[in-house]
Amino acid sequence: MTLLTRETSGVFAIAPTPFDDDGAVDFDSLGRLVDFYESVGVAGLTLLGQLGEAPKLSHDEASRIVGYVLDRTVLPIVVGVSAPGYAAMRALTTEVMSAGAAGVMVAPPNILRTDNQIADYYQGVAAAVGETVPLVVQDYPLSFSVVMTPSIIARIARAVPGFVMLKHEDWPGLEKISALRHLEAAGDMPRLSILCGNGGLFLDFETERGADGAMTGYCVPELLVDVVAHAAAGRREESHDIFDAHLPLLRYEQQPGIGLAVRKYVMKRRGLLTSDAQRTPRSVLSGQARSEIDYLLHRLAERDGRISLID
Amino acid sequence: MTLLTRETSGVFAIAPTPFDDDGAVDFDSLGRLVDFYESVGVAGLTLLGQLGEAPKLSHDEASRIVGYVLDRTVLPIVVGVSAPGYAAMRALTTEVMSAGAAGVMVAPPNILRTDNQIADYYQGVAAAVGETVPLVVQDYPLSFSVVMTPSIIARIARAVPGFVMLKHEDWPGLEKISALRHLEAAGDMPRLSILCGNGGLFLDFETERGADGAMTGYCVPELLVDVVAHAAAGRREESHDIFDAHLPLLRYEQQPGIGLAVRKYVMKRRGLLTSDAQRTPRSVLSGQARSEIDYLLHRLAERDGRISLID
Amino acid sequence: MTLLTRETSGVFAIAPTPFDDDGAVDFDSLGRLVDFYESVGVAGLTLLGQLGEAPKLSHDEASRIVGYVLDRTVLPIVVGVSAPGYAAMRALTTEVMSAGAAGVMVAPPNILRTDNQIADYYQGVAAAVGETVPLVVQDYPLSFSVVMTPSIIARIARAVPGFVMLKHEDWPGLEKISALRHLEAAGDMPRLSILCGNGGLFLDFETERGADGAMTGYCVPELLVDVVAHAAAGRREESHDIFDAHLPLLRYEQQPGIGLAVRKYVMKRRGLLTSDAQRTPRSVLSGQARSEIDYLLHRLAERDGRISLID
Amino acid sequence: MTLLTRETSGVFAIAPTPFDDDGAVDFDSLGRLVDFYESVGVAGLTLLGQLGEAPKLSHDEASRIVGYVLDRTVLPIVVGVSAPGYAAMRALTTEVMSAGAAGVMVAPPNILRTDNQIADYYQGVAAAVGETVPLVVQDYPLSFSVVMTPSIIARIARAVPGFVMLKHEDWPGLEKISALRHLEAAGDMPRLSILCGNGGLFLDFETERGADGAMTGYCVPELLVDVVAHAAAGRREESHDIFDAHLPLLRYEQQPGIGLAVRKYVMKRRGLLTSDAQRTPRSVLSGQARSEIDYLLHRLAERDGRISLID
Repeated sequence: MTLLTRETSGVFAIAPTPFDDDGAVDFDSLGRLVDFYESVGVAGLTLLGQLGEAPKLSHDEASRIVGYVLDRTVLPIVVGVSAPGYAAMRALTTEVMSAGAAGVMVAPPNILRTDNQIADYYQGVAAAVGETVPLVVQDYPLSFSVVMTPSIIARIARAVPGFVMLKHEDWPGLEKISALRHLEAAGDMPRLSILCGNGGLFLDFETERGADGAMTGYCVPELLVDVVAHAAAGRREESHDIFDAHLPLLRYEQQPGIGLAVRKYVMKRRGLLTSDAQRTPRSVLSGQARSEIDYLLHRLAERDGRISLID
Repeated sequence: MTLLTRETSGVFAIAPTPFDDDGAVDFDSLGRLVDFYESVGVAGLTLLGQLGEAPKLSHDEASRIVGYVLDRTVLPIVVGVSAPGYAAMRALTTEVMSAGAAGVMVAPPNILRTDNQIADYYQGVAAAVGETVPLVVQDYPLSFSVVMTPSIIARIARAVPGFVMLKHEDWPGLEKISALRHLEAAGDMPRLSILCGNGGLFLDFETERGADGAMTGYCVPELLVDVVAHAAAGRREESHDIFDAHLPLLRYEQQPGIGLAVRKYVMKRRGLLTSDAQRTPRSVLSGQARSEIDYLLHRLAERDGRISLID
Repeated sequence: MTLLTRETSGVFAIAPTPFDDDGAVDFDSLGRLVDFYESVGVAGLTLLGQLGEAPKLSHDEASRIVGYVLDRTVLPIVVGVSAPGYAAMRALTTEVMSAGAAGVMVAPPNILRTDNQIADYYQGVAAAVGETVPLVVQDYPLSFSVVMTPSIIARIARAVPGFVMLKHEDWPGLEKISALRHLEAAGDMPRLSILCGNGGLFLDFETERGADGAMTGYCVPELLVDVVAHAAAGRREESHDIFDAHLPLLRYEQQPGIGLAVRKYVMKRRGLLTSDAQRTPRSVLSGQARSEIDYLLHRLAERDGRISLID
Repeated sequence: MTLLTRETSGVFAIAPTPFDDDGAVDFDSLGRLVDFYESVGVAGLTLLGQLGEAPKLSHDEASRIVGYVLDRTVLPIVVGVSAPGYAAMRALTTEVMSAGAAGVMVAPPNILRTDNQIADYYQGVAAAVGETVPLVVQDYPLSFSVVMTPSIIARIARAVPGFVMLKHEDWPGLEKISALRHLEAAGDMPRLSILCGNGGLFLDFETERGADGAMTGYCVPELLVDVVAHAAAGRREESHDIFDAHLPLLRYEQQPGIGLAVRKYVMKRRGLLTSDAQRTPRSVLSGQARSEIDYLLHRLAERDGRISLID
């Protein structure tokens, strides 16, 4: 069983939950997705995050999905265990860690405001999940309305030994990465693995600022793997060239509310999902939106030969 | 099995979830609470609402609590079934209705903004829970950030036959009650049972505006029962006299964040709860806060002889 | 010229802006109001706060109102100078302080989130208004969405010598007052004058926790003066008795959105304002709301002989 | 004097306010900026918008800037006149329209929630500014928290004859443009000029959905002019080619909080601004951020020959 460490790097793909047209979980597509992610070189997977459709699953469905993926792959798996109470968080964590997960991820509840509230909350999380379980803190102010300064992240990192990874999706967030690396270098906090979210919209520069990789769900994860690899090897021009080629589609996928529909539509066109159905309530793409995505895919295919589509 | 109707009236008490000092559900106290609520003349109970500690329960605990209460009492029981997806909402509804609940309550997700989004959402809810299940719509803008005008409530009422009760806790909300009753009188919408929340802070006037009762959790539910009875009988002075006597404590309990702690502390002092423990994360009363509540109870006891306390 | 100090106590009344029925500033009523406030024993007045109708005044009107009030009374006057830029804040401060104001009040812009952002902001304020100008910091999270912990208030107090008064309207806020007084006693921050807002809804206990008074606009300021005086003299029962008598009306006035309409209506009925007109856009009281207020005034008059009304 | 019409098209540039290093308005740079905008073919200019630094200007400074720009150019000028009260809005409108402005722009106050509140607000605006004054409604939910559906925009358009232009910056917003054009075609609302904001992040598709142009402040307005021209002429590939070349920089400039700093830095490097100073409080670019922008400009210059920089 692999556990997350402070040096974990690469791309952790956030997989969408595949449903068939009747709304049942589509395990065939899930298996295909997992195999695909392995084949393109991701470093791990993240399941049951706060966004996406995990909240629309029953407890049993969520457990079966985690079990299925853990059986299917040797990739390390991060599982989202955010819950309103510590008791439920502890129960979920015990369940998934004993099933073989690599760590758990916890988003801050949106009632937290002050530095002390945030620090206290994560000390409570650590007590609940256990000090030896690798913990990923999700820093996503635009969605959760909780703002964590570098100094408060450092304070949590000093107080919570299990906190080994930051899912960074503050926006703007480049200076935050630099500030955290600076605090580490000055000995003011232990090193964290920093994986970036926000759909990858700033991954070109985030990797240059010191991020270790990405944790996000862009519909062409090959791009994320490329950028992280180019950056790690110091190939700046190659990194930006491939990133810029994908940016028009990546930006289109970043639209709040319909991003998941875009993602599922592209993954269906790539042959990864049998259906792009979402559970209700949901947003639906118009015919014109689908043709815009088709156009972006067509333009992208001219610059990235790996994009092949199923009609 | 009693079901909610458009004429349901009286007080539906929102029961706190009793825990022992170790955080386990305390079914002894729960039974005592249910018996107490029956003895003071409430018309029903509401379980698993959005606020309070229901979100801190596991799925199994929540099911056991609903089952326990349904076994204990013949009072009609409303169960909160709000969920991010309609599939989970349907499953919960089927479970509790077949166990004997009187109806289900659904709060609007805080991403809804426009009239059409709200109307569409509740039409989806009706399709999910089934048209014959009595539905309570929770209108609580301060907490959910979703604002429903009288006209949008009327529109939902016309479109959704099962929508028979409004949990009204807009603030200020007196004009909304009058507006809804006016729309009903004009034939623009079917009658709704309107039960008021907000801890009862405006129940004196809400009953005069046409509300059918209260659905809230004030630690002295006898007051709520009194006000509704006085108002129904046209005893205006008596209604305001008893209401005003309780207002200092009622106001104290209404403080965001610590209200539940106040409520549990008083219920423990009244001998209803063995412990006032909350599950973590939680707010805690200081010694000075407890002595302030004691002082308010002492003053109240001089004006309301039913207040007897356990030291 | 009196300046605010760290020991300033009593009631600073927040005066509504009187308009005639055509929307022009009604200086006759303003003069009458000022005389009334003096006669009931307030310690000072606050003009141009963030709420109310000050933002609906032109720059010239606001200047004339400040000048008029400074000419009319020897009471110390606090002037709100909040502005998006420090340059405008400095200009306003220079203008009102040279005209004789006792200090300036600044609310935090709602984009501030972290402790450091808040501290930096107020250090910038101090540089802008000048270190010798008495500064009132407005702590009102429900309205401004900026949460200041006691420790951040202490930090600002240590860094900004001019910061002598806190307008406290956090909610719940009793523990914050105790925490600040404790920090002062421990030598961790200089003393602040603490005046409480929130319409006075917790003034009975706020004074017992160590607040120096109130800064709010309740339509019967005599009550605020009484509670502060009783508390200062240790007359606990008298303080709560008069407070409780006013609480039904005070609570009614606290309704978001229509509170100002309630306040102006009562002040018109008391003969203080010629008209209760507000500038547009505005909320308007229904006939039923006015009769509810009349009823509350009628009940109040039985318990507080000073309430006499003009029909 | 040109007035806005329902057919106005092209790019309305939102000019930053130039300051010198001491914080004074830099009219030399302002003149240079205006000449530059004219030279690259913008259709008009927008002054005193809600964002940017207009709120940091004194009333006199704002008036002088509007007067200066109206003297300098024959381009139509839109002036932001948003204000908390209608009286101030009317005064500002009268002032700028008599000085020669082409129309006024009003953002919705963030307390509006329901359809009726929004419609009522803009009917009040129309009464305040006068029915013959061309009105631009600013639809920017991410910033103002006010969500306007196509049907409510149609309702305002039917009720307010002066409402001729929509500043569209909903996000995602492509479907909204299509919906509005569909309502127009069906005769359900009069035609509106639709100019898009959001820094231009979706201008490639917005023009294809029926937008008439852009109203935003991207630091290379030539790109906006190009995209609008290509789209109007049906040159789809050329439009996307030039748009995609700029997208990496455009995306970088879109970062909340530091976007204006990026914009001013680029405009200084382009020789348009003497200083990139902002009035306090402000955000500041780090050295690394400046070098990232330099890198993006360097890459862009290889694809767009018009980018020449001053060192």
